[in-house]
Amino acid sequence: MADLSYISTLPSANQILFQAKIAKKYTFADVAEKIGRSETWVAAAFYGNMPLAEEDISALVKVLDIDPAAIESISPSVNFQPDRAAKMEMPPHDPTIYRLYEIVLVYGYAFKSIIAEKFGDGIMSAICFTSKIDKEVDAEGTWVKITLRGKFLPYIKY
Amino acid sequence: MADLSYISTLPSANQILFQAKIAKKYTFADVAEKIGRSETWVAAAFYGNMPLAEEDISALVKVLDIDPAAIESISPSVNFQPDRAAKMEMPPHDPTIYRLYEIVLVYGYAFKSIIAEKFGDGIMSAICFTSKIDKEVDAEGTWVKITLRGKFLPYIKY
Amino acid sequence: MADLSYISTLPSANQILFQAKIAKKYTFADVAEKIGRSETWVAAAFYGNMPLAEEDISALVKVLDIDPAAIESISPSVNFQPDRAAKMEMPPHDPTIYRLYEIVLVYGYAFKSIIAEKFGDGIMSAICFTSKIDKEVDAEGTWVKITLRGKFLPYIKY
Amino acid sequence: MADLSYISTLPSANQILFQAKIAKKYTFADVAEKIGRSETWVAAAFYGNMPLAEEDISALVKVLDIDPAAIESISPSVNFQPDRAAKMEMPPHDPTIYRLYEIVLVYGYAFKSIIAEKFGDGIMSAICFTSKIDKEVDAEGTWVKITLRGKFLPYIKY
Amino acid sequence: MADLSYISTLPSANQILFQAKIAKKYTFADVAEKIGRSETWVAAAFYGNMPLAEEDISALVKVLDIDPAAIESISPSVNFQPDRAAKMEMPPHDPTIYRLYEIVLVYGYAFKSIIAEKFGDGIMSAICFTSKIDKEVDAEGTWVKITLRGKFLPYIKY
Amino acid sequence: MADLSYISTLPSANQILFQAKIAKKYTFADVAEKIGRSETWVAAAFYGNMPLAEEDISALVKVLDIDPAAIESISPSVNFQPDRAAKMEMPPHDPTIYRLYEIVLVYGYAFKSIIAEKFGDGIMSAICFTSKIDKEVDAEGTWVKITLRGKFLPYIKY
Amino acid sequence: MADLSYISTLPSANQILFQAKIAKKYTFADVAEKIGRSETWVAAAFYGNMPLAEEDISALVKVLDIDPAAIESISPSVNFQPDRAAKMEMPPHDPTIYRLYEIVLVYGYAFKSIIAEKFGDGIMSAICFTSKIDKEVDAEGTWVKITLRGKFLPYIKY
Amino acid sequence: MADLSYISTLPSANQILFQAKIAKKYTFADVAEKIGRSETWVAAAFYGNMPLAEEDISALVKVLDIDPAAIESISPSVNFQPDRAAKMEMPPHDPTIYRLYEIVLVYGYAFKSIIAEKFGDGIMSAICFTSKIDKEVDAEGTWVKITLRGKFLPYIKY
Amino acid sequence: MADLSYISTLPSANQILFQAKIAKKYTFADVAEKIGRSETWVAAAFYGNMPLAEEDISALVKVLDIDPAAIESISPSVNFQPDRAAKMEMPPHDPTIYRLYEIVLVYGYAFKSIIAEKFGDGIMSAICFTSKIDKEVDAEGTWVKITLRGKFLPYIKY
Amino acid sequence: MADLSYISTLPSANQILFQAKIAKKYTFADVAEKIGRSETWVAAAFYGNMPLAEEDISALVKVLDIDPAAIESISPSVNFQPDRAAKMEMPPHDPTIYRLYEIVLVYGYAFKSIIAEKFGDGIMSAICFTSKIDKEVDAEGTWVKITLRGKFLPYIKY
Repeated sequence: MADLSYISTLPSANQILFQAKIAKKYTFADVAEKIGRSETWVAAAFYGNMPLAEEDISALVKVLDIDPAAIESISPSVNFQPDRAAKMEMPPHDPTIYRLYEIVLVYGYAFKSIIAEKFGDGIMSAICFTSKIDKEVDAEGTWVKITLRGKFLPYIKY
Repeated sequence: MADLSYISTLPSANQILFQAKIAKKYTFADVAEKIGRSETWVAAAFYGNMPLAEEDISALVKVLDIDPAAIESISPSVNFQPDRAAKMEMPPHDPTIYRLYEIVLVYGYAFKSIIAEKFGDGIMSAICFTSKIDKEVDAEGTWVKITLRGKFLPYIKY
Repeated sequence: MADLSYISTLPSANQILFQAKIAKKYTFADVAEKIGRSETWVAAAFYGNMPLAEEDISALVKVLDIDPAAIESISPSVNFQPDRAAKMEMPPHDPTIYRLYEIVLVYGYAFKSIIAEKFGDGIMSAICFTSKIDKEVDAEGTWVKITLRGKFLPYIKY
Repeated sequence: MADLSYISTLPSANQILFQAKIAKKYTFADVAEKIGRSETWVAAAFYGNMPLAEEDISALVKVLDIDPAAIESISPSVNFQPDRAAKMEMPPHDPTIYRLYEIVLVYGYAFKSIIAEKFGDGIMSAICFTSKIDKEVDAEGTWVKITLRGKFLPYIKY
Repeated sequence: MADLSYISTLPSANQILFQAKIAKKYTFADVAEKIGRSETWVAAAFYGNMPLAEEDISALVKVLDIDPAAIESISPSVNFQPDRAAKMEMPPHDPTIYRLYEIVLVYGYAFKSIIAEKFGDGIMSAICFTSKIDKEVDAEGTWVKITLRGKFLPYIKY
Repeated sequence: MADLSYISTLPSANQILFQAKIAKKYTFADVAEKIGRSETWVAAAFYGNMPLAEEDISALVKVLDIDPAAIESISPSVNFQPDRAAKMEMPPHDPTIYRLYEIVLVYGYAFKSIIAEKFGDGIMSAICFTSKIDKEVDAEGTWVKITLRGKFLPYIKY
Repeated sequence: MADLSYISTLPSANQILFQAKIAKKYTFADVAEKIGRSETWVAAAFYGNMPLAEEDISALVKVLDIDPAAIESISPSVNFQPDRAAKMEMPPHDPTIYRLYEIVLVYGYAFKSIIAEKFGDGIMSAICFTSKIDKEVDAEGTWVKITLRGKFLPYIKY
Repeated sequence: MADLSYISTLPSANQILFQAKIAKKYTFADVAEKIGRSETWVAAAFYGNMPLAEEDISALVKVLDIDPAAIESISPSVNFQPDRAAKMEMPPHDPTIYRLYEIVLVYGYAFKSIIAEKFGDGIMSAICFTSKIDKEVDAEGTWVKITLRGKFLPYIKY
Repeated sequence: MADLSYISTLPSANQILFQAKIAKKYTFADVAEKIGRSETWVAAAFYGNMPLAEEDISALVKVLDIDPAAIESISPSVNFQPDRAAKMEMPPHDPTIYRLYEIVLVYGYAFKSIIAEKFGDGIMSAICFTSKIDKEVDAEGTWVKITLRGKFLPYIKY
Repeated sequence: MADLSYISTLPSANQILFQAKIAKKYTFADVAEKIGRSETWVAAAFYGNMPLAEEDISALVKVLDIDPAAIESISPSVNFQPDRAAKMEMPPHDPTIYRLYEIVLVYGYAFKSIIAEKFGDGIMSAICFTSKIDKEVDAEGTWVKITLRGKFLPYIKY
C-alpha cells in the first residue's frame, strides 16, 4: 500500500520502511505477524504515528531486509519520538478517511451520551487504546468492521 | 443524558424527546430495548441524525408518554428528513468527542491502508453502517469498546 | 421533505411554503408538475435560491392554498431578490450534500480538463444552467442520476 | 491539457503520464478510447484519483510510449493506492471548478430534498459512481452536460 | 430589491429604509435621483455602509414617507457611524457577489502590476472613491459595466 | 513590475516571461501594444491566468526575444490550460489588492442590488468579461479608474 | 466575577449559579471552601465544564440560597452531562486566556519533549487531572502560579 | 528526543543542536544541568523559541562538541532573534500537545476568573515567565506536574 | 458615536452607556474629561474592554444621568470582569479598523526587529499600556496620530 | 536582528541585505542614519515591504558593501514592486507581533470611534503613513513608544 502524496511528506526513514515493504510485497498483516505486533499498530508506526522499540526495529530490519542505518533516525537509540499526525489534513480530502470523520460528525454526540450513561462522566482514552479491522462476508455483501477499544477515564472531582 | 448547550440548538421536537426521556429517567439503552432498536441508532435519532419511522414514533409516544402532536414535525407523515450534524462543531471542543476525532487524525492513514490491503480500493460505508458501544471490565480497568461496521464499497472502474 | 434545522434559518415566507407543501403532502415533483416548472428549480425556489415570478406565486397560492400576503415578501411585486445559499455551510456536514462536494474534490480537475479539451478555455455556466434528478433501477440496484447542463462560456481574449 | 501549477504537486509518475499525453497530442477522449475506459475516469486517474489496474498500465505504456519503470510507483504491483484529492484546494480558486462548487452551494439542499423524496433517506454514492461529460450544440449555443450517476444507498435502520 | 436573509441582519433603521423603498416601489436609481445622490452610494447607505447626512435623512424622510424617529438611530444627530460590512460573508456565497470576488482572485496581481507601472508604488483608495454601474446593450448582448474610481495614494518614503 | 514572492510561485515559463519583460524594460502597456492585446489581459496572462494563443506566443517570442522552447510548456501546442489564481491568497495581504477586496466587502450587496434592479436576476459574467485601468488627473489629484465590463447572464427559469 | 458576554451563552442554570454567587459576593475560593471542593474545579463547574454531583448541588443550594428547581437541569438526577467548552473561541480573544494559549504555542514542543524524556511515549492526561492557582509575592512583584497535574498515560504497544 | 517532522522545519542551526544532543545521548535535563539553565528553557531554546546568550553558546559548543560556526546563525553576535513558534500548528495535531490546548479550552474561563478574583484585572505574563515539569509517583500511578509561573500584570487605568 | 451592529452584541449595560452618551451628545473626549480619565481608555470601557472602578461608575452615573441600577452588572460591586474583544471579528471587515490590522501585517516584523535591537528580546506590553489619538493639521492635510506606549518586558532566562 | 524562519521565506535579495547588515553588525538605526531614511521604513524595506529607490540602493551598496548585482532584483531599474506581507501569518504566532494584533482586538472599536468623533467618517491611511519607535525610561521602568501617523481620509459622499 502506498499513497504517494502523503508518504512523501513523512521523514525519510518512514519512506524507507514503505519501500522495503513494497519490495517484499508484504501487507501490513504480513509484517505484523512476522514481528509479533498487531496490524493497525504496525501501519500507524509506518506512518510515523507510533514509535518502534529496539526489538521492533531489529525485527523489521530482518523481515524487510533494511540497512539498520537507514532507519536509525526513528529508533529509540536516538531518542526518537513521533510527531503524530503532523501532516494529516482535516477535514480529510481522502474519501476513505472522510467516512471515519463523518461518523464522528453524525454519531459524535450519540456516542458521547452513551459513554456518559454506561460509564459516567469521562472519555474513552485514545492513548491507552487498541484497534483492529476485520473483514466479514455475509449474504448482503462484504463488511469492514473496525473495533476501537480504549480505557474509560473518568474525570476527577477535586 | 443532557448536554444542554448542544441540545438547545436542535429542533424543538428533539428537545421534547430528550425531556421525556429525562422525565422517565430512561437511558438510551432503556429506550432502545423498549422500542426494539439499537442503542446508538436511538441516540443518533434523538440528536436528530436518524429519521424515525411511523412505528418508531408510535413506540416512542407510548414509551415516553409524549403528545404525538409535539413530535409530529419529525415524523415521516410530514416527510421529515434529518439535517444531519448541522450544528456539530469540528474540530470538536468536547473532550469525549475529540478523542474520536483524534483517532481519525492518528490512525486515518493506517486504517485506510489496511482497508486497501484487505478489501481493495474503496471505502467503509458510513451509510450502510451500524455501530455499538460495549463495556468491558478486566484486571486493568474498564474499557469502552466501539464497534463500527460498514459495507465495503469498491470504486467502480469505468 | 423538511430538514428542520436548515429551513428554520430561511426567511419566513420560505418556511410557509414548506409548511403548506407538507400539509398538502406534496412532493417537489407534485408541485413542479402543478405549476409547470421543473422539480429541481422548484426545490431551489423553496429553499430561497430561485426567485418566483408573479405567475409562479399565483400558481403556488392556488396549488398550496396559501394566503398571498404570507409570501408577499418574496414576490417580484416587492422587488424580491434571493440571497442565494446565504446559510449553506461548507464543507457540508450533511452526508447527502457532502457526496456532491466530494465529487468536486475528486473529479474537479478531471472535469476541468475535459471541458478544456472539448470546449476550449472557459467554464460551464452555473447561471445559464438547468439540472434534473432521475431514478434508474437495474439489476445492480437503484441509481441516482443527476444531470447538470450549463452553457459553455469561453474566456474573451481582449 | 496541462494546468501546470496543480500537476506539479502530483507524484512524479502522474506528471510523466501528462507529459507523454502531451507529447502524443492526445486528448483524454483519445486515451480513453485507446485503453477502453471512459474519459472522466481516465482523467481522474491521470490526476492520481483513480488507481490503474495492471491491464490499464500495460495499455497506457503501449499507447503513450512510456517506460514502464517510470510509472511503476503507481502500479498495483507495488500495491499503489491513490491519495485522492490530497492537494485540491477548497473553495476552488479556479473558476471552472468553482462553478461546480457553486452548484453544490446553490442546489445542495434542493438536490438532497429530491433524493429524499424519490429514494428515501440516504445518499447518492460517490464511490459506486460514474460520470461523463457531453457537448450539446443547439440554437442557443453550446452546452456542457455533466452526468453524475451513483448508486442510491439507504441508511440502515438498526 | 430585498434579499431578505442579509437585510434581516442589519440594524432596524436600515430595514425600515428598505421597507419604505419597497412600499414606494422605488429603485435605488429612483431614490438616488430624488435625493440628489448617486445610485451606488445610496444602495451602500441602505445596506448600512455609508452614513447619511442630515440633509440626506430629511430628503429620505420626505421621499419615502418615513417617520423620522424610526431612522433616528442612524442619523448624525446621534453621532451614528456605520459598522461597514460587519455581516458580509467572505468568500461570498451569493453568485452575483462571488463574481466580483473572483475578479480579485483572477486579476488581483494583474491590476496591482498595472497600477504600479502607471502610477508608482501605491494603491487605489477605497475611501476617496466613487463607483457606478451602467448598462450597455450591443449586438452581442447586454453588458454590466462597473466603474471603480479611487484616488491614487503613493506610499510615503520616510 | 516584479513582486518576487508571488512570481516565484508561478510555473517557470511565466517567470521567464517576466524576466524577459524586465530585461527589455517594457511595461505591460508596451507589451500589450506590441502584440495587439489589451494591457490587463496581457498582465493576467503573464501571471498565468489567461492562456496565450499560438499567435500571442509568436508575437511575445519576437517582442521579448525569448527562446520559444522556454515557454513551450504554456503554449496551446501542448494543450496548456491555466490553473487560474491557484496561489492567490484570500483575504489578500497585499494592500493594493486588498483595497479591491474591500470594495467587494463594502459594496458587494449594493452592486448586487443595482444589478438586480437594472438587469433582473442574474450576474455580471467574470468570464465573458473585459477590464481596463485608466489614469485620470484633475485638480484634486490623480485617480485610478478601473472599468469592469461583463455580459449580464440571467438565471434560467426552468 | 462575571464576564457577561461569555456567561450569557451558557445554559440558564449556570447563569443562575453566577448570579447567586454575585449576590452573595463570594469568590470561587469562598464557594470552594464552603462546599469542600477546590477552587478551579468549582469555577469550571460554574462555567458548565464539570458536572455537579447530588451532594455538590445540595451544598450549593444551601450556600448560595438557590431554589433547587432553578438548577435542576444540570443535576445528575436528570442525567446531566456537560457540553464542555462548547462556546469557547480559539484562538482566544481574551488576553488573559490568550497568554495560556501562547504558552502552548511557545512551549508546546518543549513540554512534549521533556514529557517524552522523563516518562516515555505518552501524554499528560487532561481528564485524570487537577489544577490549582496560587499567588506568590516576592521582591520582584506578584506572581501567578498555575499548577497542572495529570496522570501520565503511556501509549499501548499492541 | 527528536520528532523529525517538526524539527526539519526549524533553521539548520537548531537541527544541528538536536543532532549533537542525540549523538551525545543527552536528555534536556542533562544539557540543562551542564550549562546551568533549566530544562524547559533549554528545550524551548533548542526548538528555536528562546535565544541563546554568548555564554550559553560557549557552554553548548563545549558540552555538545559542536563546531561554533555551525550554530553561529543563532548567536547574539549576529544579532539573532527567535521567530517564536513560527511553524507551530494550532489546534495541535500531536496528542501530547493537544492535551495542553484542551486544558485552555476547558479551564480557560475558570483560570481567568480565579486570576481576576485573586489578583484583580490583568494577566499572568507569558514573557516574565518560568515553567518546569516534575514527575510524581504515588499509589495511583505516575503523574506529570507542570508548573507555570508568570508575573501578574494589572491593566493600567489611565 | 454608535456603530449599531457591533454595539448591539455588547452586554446591555454597555448599550445603556452608549445611549446615555448619545442622548447627552457627548464625545468620548467630553466624557473622559468629565470623569478624569483618558479618551481611549473611556472608549474601550464603553465597548466593554476595560472595567470601571466604583469611582468611574459614580462619575458616569452623574455625568450621563444614568440609573445606577441599569449598569450595576458591570460594576466592581458585582465583581464584574470584562470579556475583552469577545465579539471582535478578525480580520476586521470595517475599513477603519482594518488599516490598523494592515499596519501589523506590513510592519509587524519591522517593529519586532527594532524592538529587539533597541530593547533586547521581549515585547511591548499590551496590558501595562496606554494609548492616545491626536489630530494634527499641516499644509499637507489632516493627520491621525496614534501613540501606543507599553512597558518593555524582557523574556526571563532561567 | 535576524529571525531566521521568516527571513528564509523572503526573496534572496532581501536575505542578502540582512546578511550584509549582520556582517557589519549594524542596527536598523545605524543603517537608517547612514542612508538618510527612518528606522522603521528601513526595517520594512529589508523585510521586502517597502521598495528601495535607486538612491537607496546606491547608498545601501556602499554602506553595506554589497555587490550591486546581488540585489538588482529588488531595484527600480528592474521595475521591482514589493509583494507586501505575503508570508506574514495572521494571527501572528510571534508574541512580540501578537501584542500589536491584540491592541487591534482590544482597542479596534475604541480607536475607530475616536477617529470618527475627532475627524468624521473616514480612516487613518496606512499608505500615506509614517511610524517610529522610541525608548523611554522612567521610574517605573522602560517603555516602548510606537507612534503611528497617517493622513485622515474622509469617505467621499457622491
